[in-house]
Amino acid sequence: MTSHFKTVLLATGIVLMLPQVAICNELLEEAADTFEPIPSVVPAVKDNAVTGEKVELGKMLFFDPRLSSSALISCNTCHNLGMGGDDNLETSIGHGWQKGPRNAPTVLNAVFNIAQFWDGRAEDLKAQAKGPIQAGVEMANTPKQVEITLNSLPEYVERFTDAFPGDEAPVTFDNMAKAIEAFEATLITPHSRFDQFLAGNTKVMDAEEQEGLRLFMDKGCSACHAGVNLGGEGYYPFGVVEQPGAEILPVGDKGRFAVTETADEEYVFRAAPLRNIELTAPYFHSGKVWNLEQAVAIMGTSQLGEDLSDGEVKAITAFLKTLTGEQPRVVYPILPVENENTPRPELMIAK
Amino acid sequence: MTSHFKTVLLATGIVLMLPQVAICNELLEEAADTFEPIPSVVPAVKDNAVTGEKVELGKMLFFDPRLSSSALISCNTCHNLGMGGDDNLETSIGHGWQKGPRNAPTVLNAVFNIAQFWDGRAEDLKAQAKGPIQAGVEMANTPKQVEITLNSLPEYVERFTDAFPGDEAPVTFDNMAKAIEAFEATLITPHSRFDQFLAGNTKVMDAEEQEGLRLFMDKGCSACHAGVNLGGEGYYPFGVVEQPGAEILPVGDKGRFAVTETADEEYVFRAAPLRNIELTAPYFHSGKVWNLEQAVAIMGTSQLGEDLSDGEVKAITAFLKTLTGEQPRVVYPILPVENENTPRPELMIAK
Repeated sequence: MTSHFKTVLLATGIVLMLPQVAICNELLEEAADTFEPIPSVVPAVKDNAVTGEKVELGKMLFFDPRLSSSALISCNTCHNLGMGGDDNLETSIGHGWQKGPRNAPTVLNAVFNIAQFWDGRAEDLKAQAKGPIQAGVEMANTPKQVEITLNSLPEYVERFTDAFPGDEAPVTFDNMAKAIEAFEATLITPHSRFDQFLAGNTKVMDAEEQEGLRLFMDKGCSACHAGVNLGGEGYYPFGVVEQPGAEILPVGDKGRFAVTETADEEYVFRAAPLRNIELTAPYFHSGKVWNLEQAVAIMGTSQLGEDLSDGEVKAITAFLKTLTGEQPRVVYPILPVENENTPRPELMIAK
Repeated sequence: MTSHFKTVLLATGIVLMLPQVAICNELLEEAADTFEPIPSVVPAVKDNAVTGEKVELGKMLFFDPRLSSSALISCNTCHNLGMGGDDNLETSIGHGWQKGPRNAPTVLNAVFNIAQFWDGRAEDLKAQAKGPIQAGVEMANTPKQVEITLNSLPEYVERFTDAFPGDEAPVTFDNMAKAIEAFEATLITPHSRFDQFLAGNTKVMDAEEQEGLRLFMDKGCSACHAGVNLGGEGYYPFGVVEQPGAEILPVGDKGRFAVTETADEEYVFRAAPLRNIELTAPYFHSGKVWNLEQAVAIMGTSQLGEDLSDGEVKAITAFLKTLTGEQPRVVYPILPVENENTPRPELMIAK
């Protein structure tokens, strides 16, 4: 970003302006070294070429409640694309009205995270997609049952065949996950005001927002919340300095410890990605905090050991609200119609 | 339709062709006297001008789960626009995973029905929209709570103000229902093959489908299933000739009797509209029959006193599948973000 900016200036021949611009944009340059803009094109995904056929199929699967055993719950139920890519509940409600253990993370820009889930236990979105479908408290289905359902629907069989050319038996649970991953890779939110700022248009952020950005970097927030998603890149204890109370950090949920079984990873979580954060209350893995300013203040105490002033909290919150990007424009898919071979909903069976 | 057809012929001057065409299209002419095509423009709605502002607002409300007390269930949960406008469940699942009493009717083309619900207890869609939101087993909310929620969201306040100009306090439960009705009036499915047939293109229906149409009229199905929706226009006992068993017609649900308290309306229901019927299994108010051919056979016995042959059932079913029209193309709405004044989800309170 920085070097590109300089090149443009040099190319115009106005070399004398360089030092002045550099001073004016000290904040911009530091931000550009710390963060990355959301790209305006769909990012590539490891081991899964993002093709149009896969994306369209993945969109249908994302919205299809028949991936759940009840035929009532779809990916979009908890990752609602109209509500910031999550459900705005403390923790999600799933099969049989059971309460999930953690707050649903947003699917928006999730493709940029180093790994998925609050504890990073899924290495990518195709691994992640298989989790909730099988979780008893979420969609309560099985890979076998999903494959029977998909194979019963001729339009899906055709679309899997087109999306996975060369596969002998393309309608598999694995390919379902790949198609969903391909669709989710398109769920990025470019052109936030912060991205416009990073692109050099510093006027889109007002003084308080720029002050918030300054504080966000100077106080140390950006030590964990950096990169393209301002988070989602590494794992840190919730309570680096001081653990919050059990009402926010429930004692029973030890975070990444359950994945790595390493003692010093107790209460370690993936730093939350902060893109579109104003759309995804309530906050933290426990979903216990509804107010973004309160969440910022808690982070100050627990992670930085600092009681941020009201003004600092307000400024940082104002900055965080510049991270809201253009929400995905999705045409609601028309799903294949069931037939006599399609498994019937299993509403009353708690698995 | 018939007279228009003749006029066109006369206008072309080929008057000698008239008798021949009339013979060829006897089926068409009889059908055109019995049924009406879905219009290609949005129909007018009584006491509720369908404006662009209302439709867009209504779309947001239709997809907004915050109309339910749990903030989990939207109109679209049970009237899924990707699945024929219903949920393809026996009866719907609502608040607290409670089972609703009757099969969810499709919202598609519902604007053409004489009244709403299986028993016609709502005179129009704006009255209907208020029902499920308040029903304890569905969305379990109250008008007051809905108004508090909507008033807490500035974008909704602005959109209600634009959609209901001149209203002093536009954000009301009544106006919510009107906006939803306006959106639902757009959910029509024109250009089915049957509509193309009615428009004179008889080749779009094959011989079996045309035979099915002939049987549908000759056997008497069209006595109750006529008009634009092939049903939805009047009330008839389920079991005009012979009541089906309790597994299909549960004894406890007396249909329209609960509305009119008139003894001879026991087990009387609104004749189901048959547009897009292949998309909306399972069938009947009890949702007990998944197979369309089986539903046709049951209708033959119970309503016509006739054991239709397998060939007749197949032909009528083939005809019914020509009623599937163009499904609505809806861009998924981005909903207003909640704030500290927005009521929190009430997940655990069974009302």
